[in-house]
Amino acid sequence: MNQSVGQSSFRHGKPVYILNSASVVGTKEGEGPLGELFDMVGDNDRFGCDTWEDAESTLQKEAVYLALEKAGKKPGDIKCILAGDLLGQSMATSFGISVYEIPLLGLYGACSTSGESLLIGSMAVAGGFAESVVCVTSSHFASAEKEFRFPLEYGNQRPLSATWTVTGSGAFVLGAERENGSRAMITGATIGRVVDYGLKDSFNMGGCMAPAAADTIRQHFEDFGTGPSDYDKIITGDLGTVGQTVLIDLLREQGYDISKQHTDCGIEIFDAGSQDTHAGGSGCGCAAVTLSAYILKQLEEGVWKRVLFAPTGALLSKTSFNEGKSVPGISHALVIESLQNESSYLQR
Amino acid sequence: MNQSVGQSSFRHGKPVYILNSASVVGTKEGEGPLGELFDMVGDNDRFGCDTWEDAESTLQKEAVYLALEKAGKKPGDIKCILAGDLLGQSMATSFGISVYEIPLLGLYGACSTSGESLLIGSMAVAGGFAESVVCVTSSHFASAEKEFRFPLEYGNQRPLSATWTVTGSGAFVLGAERENGSRAMITGATIGRVVDYGLKDSFNMGGCMAPAAADTIRQHFEDFGTGPSDYDKIITGDLGTVGQTVLIDLLREQGYDISKQHTDCGIEIFDAGSQDTHAGGSGCGCAAVTLSAYILKQLEEGVWKRVLFAPTGALLSKTSFNEGKSVPGISHALVIESLQNESSYLQR
Repeated sequence: MNQSVGQSSFRHGKPVYILNSASVVGTKEGEGPLGELFDMVGDNDRFGCDTWEDAESTLQKEAVYLALEKAGKKPGDIKCILAGDLLGQSMATSFGISVYEIPLLGLYGACSTSGESLLIGSMAVAGGFAESVVCVTSSHFASAEKEFRFPLEYGNQRPLSATWTVTGSGAFVLGAERENGSRAMITGATIGRVVDYGLKDSFNMGGCMAPAAADTIRQHFEDFGTGPSDYDKIITGDLGTVGQTVLIDLLREQGYDISKQHTDCGIEIFDAGSQDTHAGGSGCGCAAVTLSAYILKQLEEGVWKRVLFAPTGALLSKTSFNEGKSVPGISHALVIESLQNESSYLQR
Repeated sequence: MNQSVGQSSFRHGKPVYILNSASVVGTKEGEGPLGELFDMVGDNDRFGCDTWEDAESTLQKEAVYLALEKAGKKPGDIKCILAGDLLGQSMATSFGISVYEIPLLGLYGACSTSGESLLIGSMAVAGGFAESVVCVTSSHFASAEKEFRFPLEYGNQRPLSATWTVTGSGAFVLGAERENGSRAMITGATIGRVVDYGLKDSFNMGGCMAPAAADTIRQHFEDFGTGPSDYDKIITGDLGTVGQTVLIDLLREQGYDISKQHTDCGIEIFDAGSQDTHAGGSGCGCAAVTLSAYILKQLEEGVWKRVLFAPTGALLSKTSFNEGKSVPGISHALVIESLQNESSYLQR
């Protein structure tokens, strides 16, 4: 039986399997430390399209195609697709995945959307509403700069606290039954709240989001009665190096030391020194492609047995920024486990 | 047991109860045919705020407050809030509901979001993940015009196929157990696909969305083995009069005549003739406030026993419009029944 746990969490009665997944990235991500692990690296970041928005749509389309193929599924096997991106009115999604004619549940949680899609997707599967669903999210450096900051042609300088939006899309096929090739299992989740410390600096989104990550991780520990050492890794989405420091400090104040377990997809995906990405990577695609290419691989190989995957989102828009509003954060957390834990989980 | 039904649908094993709900609207909606049914009508459309975006946030905040109060719930009783709006990056939601500190799952389905929030919310409850959730969506005439069309100060003329974005927010408290005051029950749903007939006229959104509504309603009939006469009403979100004609024609071509059962929240909410709203009302708030104030009342009074509630969304953004893209549509459908059907449903 699925179970509501504590204030903000739930536990799946049966594990939800990540049947397979795929990652598609741009050139810069392909040159980074995880480059060889991605399923597809574009020749250039236009992906054969005339606009950055279409390029981002293509990322989603390709990621879903590859994930379905790797999972041995056809679009007709999938009850629904849970998808989102960072563009106004989620346009990369609307135009990216319609070709598959799979029912769509559109999501928006800024860069936390990859976690949100897996969270709701796993509810749909574990709740008996769907045999299989697909979760996909994307971001694109150029469409995000256009959407939130400055035209690329300005060549504006970026402070060292800024992150670099990942060009990439990660897609995941979830199912109720373990199949050949299944990569890992989702066993529980914590839904994040909007947390607003009043920061207004959109070039320090790590700082803006860290309080939300801290709130969700603390709530997760409380709801499940666990602590840092119960996880081999605690992995945020795109806090970068500045946000990481804030997160570790905030949780230390609450009595949790996650400095040994913590890493961040935005830190893993780029070599900040040589790639000039400042505080790290960010975007809806950052956590998604890192999960698919790197984290699930570690779980498959048994290097890690159980991780807490907590993508982080900065809730801002051009309009809210221009109206002088703060940048609230949100973070959703999922417990993702190695299939080596399967029999022990079923006995828990 | 919850059940995946057909290609795009699911049925709840136990009904999910709409424990209570609330509607907050602007002055024009208050002057319309449903005016006396709304819980709160603003004195003016600024709702005490300096910006239209903040005014829309206030709509959500007030609607959630009233719905919780009417349901006798505190924020701490609610596992999560499923919310969305039409603004870029869903800013009305991010700033509207954070005060409650309830975990948030942000959604984007354009004006279909009210259906999407009830659909996912009912999954969370029926799946055993949450005892209670809140679903809330909003739109505001002025923030939507600014977001999608022209500054109000231009005073631009609108063609007769245009709809008028509703200023309003509807909030719903869903729960697993029937309580005193419960208004109706959700018993099944059909998830909609993106349907794109290539229309590009953002001043004829009814025409753009009607094919999606037709697709979802047809799929619903197929998945559940039902037809128009199984529903006392089939209620779309905001097709208006132009979209209504297209919808009825499209479904007639598929062998379904819904002309007797069909109505549309956008048609019900305004008196188009005297209120100069052209084809009708639209927006995320349109279907939500009409459901709360009017449809649930009809179900409570037993005038209707079972309705198909199918909010409709037009997937466009400023950017997609300016890049010459089409306006795809999406529609999600929910079966909402009178509590007079409860014992017969439990025996089905």
